[in-house]
Amino acid sequence: MTEVATARRSRITPEREAELYAAVLDLLREVGYDALTMDAVAARTRSSKATLYRQWGSKAELVVRAMRHSKPGRVTDVDTGTLRGDMHAMVVREDDCRMEQNSALMRGLAMATHNNPDLLRAFRELMIEPEVEEFRIVMQRAIDRGEVRADCPALQYVVHMMIGAFATRTLIEDQPPTQEYLTSYIDAVMLPALGAPTS
Amino acid sequence: MTEVATARRSRITPEREAELYAAVLDLLREVGYDALTMDAVAARTRSSKATLYRQWGSKAELVVRAMRHSKPGRVTDVDTGTLRGDMHAMVVREDDCRMEQNSALMRGLAMATHNNPDLLRAFRELMIEPEVEEFRIVMQRAIDRGEVRADCPALQYVVHMMIGAFATRTLIEDQPPTQEYLTSYIDAVMLPALGAPTS
Repeated sequence: MTEVATARRSRITPEREAELYAAVLDLLREVGYDALTMDAVAARTRSSKATLYRQWGSKAELVVRAMRHSKPGRVTDVDTGTLRGDMHAMVVREDDCRMEQNSALMRGLAMATHNNPDLLRAFRELMIEPEVEEFRIVMQRAIDRGEVRADCPALQYVVHMMIGAFATRTLIEDQPPTQEYLTSYIDAVMLPALGAPTS
Repeated sequence: MTEVATARRSRITPEREAELYAAVLDLLREVGYDALTMDAVAARTRSSKATLYRQWGSKAELVVRAMRHSKPGRVTDVDTGTLRGDMHAMVVREDDCRMEQNSALMRGLAMATHNNPDLLRAFRELMIEPEVEEFRIVMQRAIDRGEVRADCPALQYVVHMMIGAFATRTLIEDQPPTQEYLTSYIDAVMLPALGAPTS
């Protein structure tokens, strides 16, 4: 169904798409991924299951597109002139309340991927790969400015460091990630590991 | 029941305890935490639910103690003389097959903690706090040897870095963490962030 979904996605208006995604995220927060059904989404959004499957092909694709849609603009639109400035800019795109919601959603989704190859594929394609590409651009700028050496071994682990910091906060400290925590982690861990200026 | 459980745990033999924990981990791999029932554990281990509750107080405590029991000896028994040596020693305590099993189990448990305060408490108390303490000892040795400055900002994030690397590998690369990956991450990220020698 995915080919059809891709072919027909243009059929629905951006407003309707945003409305559907918001409803999916509400349901996801209420019941979690495994308990979320296309029937519930259809009921909540007053649409038919056939329409949902035609547009998105699968629950996994619908849920991950809804998550992806909720993400703010790409940092690559911003160019602060320093790696530290760019990385801090990536963090402050979301306020702490939104970050707490998204960390709970991402944690739930990330774990659901464990038994669900479709979800893992959609999660990686729509959530991870754009992060990887965004960091690639930000890091290339830092290399071009001479802030980071092109052969720095930490470059291959930038996304692991960032997502790891995001994912482990709740587990280790029973607190959601915040802008203050992530900027502190960037300054204490990521910039030193990359050999980049920390101020 | 937890007080009772603690008071009576001495009642069962170490052999029987190990046998029970192994059965719990098998069940956990087969059905996951949420679907795991004390009835299933009782059936699998030929014991009564009353016995299980008397010994462990709750499913959360039983499961996390089983996870904890499966962990190899503490690295603090090892003292290689360098931070790099100690951290590599922490990683090679488990072979890759065991590490893959444990990463899947930990991911499943970490997710279940999201909606389960009992499990989160047990998980943090039995899985996270010992890690934190172990790293505290290893880092103190490195500080005493002059390998790491006592005021290094990365010290507060050592556990985030390590657990983050462990947790994000599958998500980002669709591969389980391995000894090779974790030792490479330690050399590329953790030691440089700590300002410690990388060779």
